[in-house]
Parts: sequence; C-alpha cells; structure tokens
Amino acid sequence: MKELEERILRDGNVLGGEVLKVDNFLNHQIDPKLMQSIGNEFAKHYANKGITRIVTIESSGIAPAVFAGLALGVPVVFARKQKSLTLTDDLYSTDVYSFTKKSTSTIVISKKFLEKTDRILLIDDFLANGQAAKGLIKICQEAQATVVGVGIVIEKSFQVGRQLLEEENYEVYSLARIRAFEEGQVKFVEE
Amino acid sequence: MKELEERILRDGNVLGGEVLKVDNFLNHQIDPKLMQSIGNEFAKHYANKGITRIVTIESSGIAPAVFAGLALGVPVVFARKQKSLTLTDDLYSTDVYSFTKKSTSTIVISKKFLEKTDRILLIDDFLANGQAAKGLIKICQEAQATVVGVGIVIEKSFQVGRQLLEEENYEVYSLARIRAFEEGQVKFVEE
Repeated sequence: MKELEERILRDGNVLGGEVLKVDNFLNHQIDPKLMQSIGNEFAKHYANKGITRIVTIESSGIAPAVFAGLALGVPVVFARKQKSLTLTDDLYSTDVYSFTKKSTSTIVISKKFLEKTDRILLIDDFLANGQAAKGLIKICQEAQATVVGVGIVIEKSFQVGRQLLEEENYEVYSLARIRAFEEGQVKFVEE
Repeated sequence: MKELEERILRDGNVLGGEVLKVDNFLNHQIDPKLMQSIGNEFAKHYANKGITRIVTIESSGIAPAVFAGLALGVPVVFARKQKSLTLTDDLYSTDVYSFTKKSTSTIVISKKFLEKTDRILLIDDFLANGQAAKGLIKICQEAQATVVGVGIVIEKSFQVGRQLLEEENYEVYSLARIRAFEEGQVKFVEE
C-alpha cells in the first residue's frame, strides 16, 4: 500500500537493529485518515469472504480494525492484555510473549464474543515473530471459529511471523512488508 | 444522543451498584457504526472551536476518538497506561486511580505529540469520578496546551467527575448522561 509505505519512509524511525517506531501515525499518535485508508484496504481484500467479526488486540490494532469493521459491516473484538474487574467470567485466554517488550502478557477475550459460526478476520498493527497473531488464532480455535485471514499493517518480513502462520495455512495480507533495515533505512519487499 | 441511549438500554448490564458493563459495543466488542455516529456527534459539537488534536486514553477511548479525529481532520493521541520499551524518552506522565479497577496506573504521553499551540479535545469512554480526565488535563497543562473541552461517551452523573471538571471551568459534553441505576435499570438525566 503505497500511501502507507511513503508514510513509513517519512515518519518511521528505526531504533537499534530491529525496532521500527511508528508512533506518530499508528502506535501512540494516530492518523485517522490513514487508518481509514488502511481499514478500507483490508475490507476490499476480504470482501466476499463472509467475514462475520474482526478480532484484534489492544491498543494499536484497534484503529485499523474499527475502520475495516465499518467498511465490512461487522463488529470488532479487541483482546485485552490483562483482566479487569468488569471482565472476569467466561474468558478465553492465552499467554503471548513480546520480543519487543521482553515480557509475557495474558490476552483474554470474553467467550460471548466468539461463536462457532464466526468467520474471523484477525487484524494487528505489526507482524514480527507472530506471537500475538498465534495467540489470537489459538483463542479463535478454542472457540471453534474459523480464521479466514490475518490482516497486518506492517510486516517485518525478515522475522518468522509470516512463515509460522503460513505453515499452518493461514493467509497473511500485509499492507507494508519490510525486507530489511539497512543503515537505519527501511527497505520494502519488492512485489 | 438517542442512538447511544437506546443501545445502553438494550445491551448495557448494571453490575453491583455502580458498574455499567457495555462490553458488547464499546469496551471489548466495538460497534464501528455506532462509534462513527459518536465521533461525528463530537465533531459536530466541537466544529469551529479550532481543535488541533484529540487526546484520549487506551483502550476504549480510541475508537470514538479516531472517528471524531477523522471528522475534525485532526490527529489523535492516546495516553498509554504504562511504559513500553519503545516509548521511554521525553514523556509527560501522571498517576491515575481507577475506582473500577481499584488500582493506580501511570499514564504517559510523549512530549513530541503535545504542543503549546495545541487546542485539545479530550475524549474518553466513561466519566465517573473524573480521575482519568483530570490526569489527561494535567498532562495537557504541563505541555501548556489548551484543553477546549471534554467529550465523554457515557457519563455517570451521580458521581463527581463532571462537577470536578466544571469547577475548573472545563466544558463537558457527554453523549449519554446516567442519573441513576434503579433496580438494575439505567435512568438517564432528563434534558
């Protein structure tokens, strides 16, 4: 997605070797217009796939997911990273390790928001090692729902996430695919 | 906002004496179409007020805020509830006590996303005791930005939040104002 790649080149910061900071349009400050374009792009790709629900993970997945949900006309469920007092009964949960944060968190989704008949589109901001996506898939499997595809805003193609998901036959649709960081510069996969 | 009040009556659950669970359209599952209506309503109310940025707090404030941001043509910044590895330098931070969760969390916003010249619209999902809003205001004050108004999706008018904010001359615009929970039923303020 050209608009997104241009934005990453303009506003993304490569920290250390492997972290891309895109906190001025996606992870901390959000550009609503870009998120709308992103949501529409996911919706176009997954139109006519019978999606009934979008599942994402707080917090940075929410903005792209709600615009995709609006365009597809389906609700969005976001997995929470910890239990809150008003969210305790009948939860699906799994542990997710974050290589960026170097910590494990428990993600939970209320059982009432996933049904056996659901055809799920997973959406997340980043795909790197695939741990968050795998956690969401595990929860959807527990609910016996069908995961139709995994929509990713930014994929780090040099990490194992896509491979892990494709090995389990999940379709991955990433709007920007980063091949490498070379001398602090973002290089995209040529397609 | 009639559409929101009807949705609260239909899908909200009153837990214990004071907690309203609206997790099937706002706090866990999100109804994108309703969020768009909510965002548009905020945008209509704050049109021509020179808003330059919306500030909210993760996670449930994000969906209403991004639709308001889209309609107003301004970026949205969401305060994070804890530091992450990629978000450490130059932060405004303050502690916020949550009566619902019975715990204190630190909320942070990167200094680069608040400017002296900013005219800020704060948006949050709930206003009860006003602690989150006060925390966001404190951060905006530190940044010397102007808080033009506080847009709230659901206000519990029987708690002190609105009063605390109005005492400090902040305008509060709530789309649903709950007067009381009577025998597990939601009663709105008659306006």
